[in-house]
Amino acid sequence: MIGYPNGKRKQTLSNKVAQKANLGQSLEQDLNATNDYYRVHNIALVHKKPTPITVVEVDYPKRSAAKITKAFYQLPSTTDYNGVYKGVYIDFEAKSTKNKTRLPLSMIHSHQLSHLDHVLKHQGFGFLILRFSVIEETYLVEYTILKKFLKETSLKSIPYEWIKSNGHLIPMSYLKPCDYIQVLDKILIKGE
Amino acid sequence: MIGYPNGKRKQTLSNKVAQKANLGQSLEQDLNATNDYYRVHNIALVHKKPTPITVVEVDYPKRSAAKITKAFYQLPSTTDYNGVYKGVYIDFEAKSTKNKTRLPLSMIHSHQLSHLDHVLKHQGFGFLILRFSVIEETYLVEYTILKKFLKETSLKSIPYEWIKSNGHLIPMSYLKPCDYIQVLDKILIKGE
Repeated sequence: MIGYPNGKRKQTLSNKVAQKANLGQSLEQDLNATNDYYRVHNIALVHKKPTPITVVEVDYPKRSAAKITKAFYQLPSTTDYNGVYKGVYIDFEAKSTKNKTRLPLSMIHSHQLSHLDHVLKHQGFGFLILRFSVIEETYLVEYTILKKFLKETSLKSIPYEWIKSNGHLIPMSYLKPCDYIQVLDKILIKGE
Repeated sequence: MIGYPNGKRKQTLSNKVAQKANLGQSLEQDLNATNDYYRVHNIALVHKKPTPITVVEVDYPKRSAAKITKAFYQLPSTTDYNGVYKGVYIDFEAKSTKNKTRLPLSMIHSHQLSHLDHVLKHQGFGFLILRFSVIEETYLVEYTILKKFLKETSLKSIPYEWIKSNGHLIPMSYLKPCDYIQVLDKILIKGE
């Protein structure tokens, strides 16, 4: 075995070990880390939108520091993430479940589906990132494909098996814990 | 003069009168109304991002209604608006000043300029919407053009005359109080 005198052994971790290292990290943290990597390395420009909050009362103890003392969370009217990759507008929602066999549809708001409909109309690329946290698998599901499923089904959840067959498994690595651009590359090249 | 028995006279207001009707409306309100119009009429899909807020304390009086009791505004790391128009990723910041002769550069955060730099790199279209509220003129300034100006100037503000010569006057109407897509159309066609 080769030694690593500079102590930078982390970079050589295998995918399997990297997965263990990230165990317990939330999907949001993984996406933030991945999007940071994409931005710093000029791969893509994607941000999570801030959570919409209705501010009711603000206190001004000092002129510079406004302190919000009463506020409420709003229901989001769009998805959480959007940005641009090679000139293509991308837009997605990310959901994680501890359930091993299905992802409840109640996790996805109707507002968000209708937003993804609009994305399609304006020639953007809309998708979902769905994680089964217990088995540590994350899938990219194109919105066009999910839309067909939702039209035809009466189920109140998306079965794991359907996602496995119709989605794309997202590779994870230490620096890019949710590397969905790798998947996008394949889809966009195929679609050209 | 023709009578309007259904009382829908507002729709026939001239541009000049419409301008007066909107007098005092903030640029943010105008952009929200315009973006709503674009969305409902399938012209473009553009949203204002929520203001980023750091939540420190939350109270749960009922399980359903979380009440935020301590929070602070964050400095934005991106621009306020982004979306998609005819497949093109668009991204912009909007600023309004009461000053009649110049727009102070201190109104635009360096984070936002560096964000617009990234937008350019990824083949998106970045710009600023700048309003002189007293004279009621609003301009679209392409980021590529502003960038050159910022490199060459030592000024701490952008003169009105420069904006008038280098920007595009945005038409306003009753239903679209800040109709920047009309301007974008001309720019994007020219650029093809």
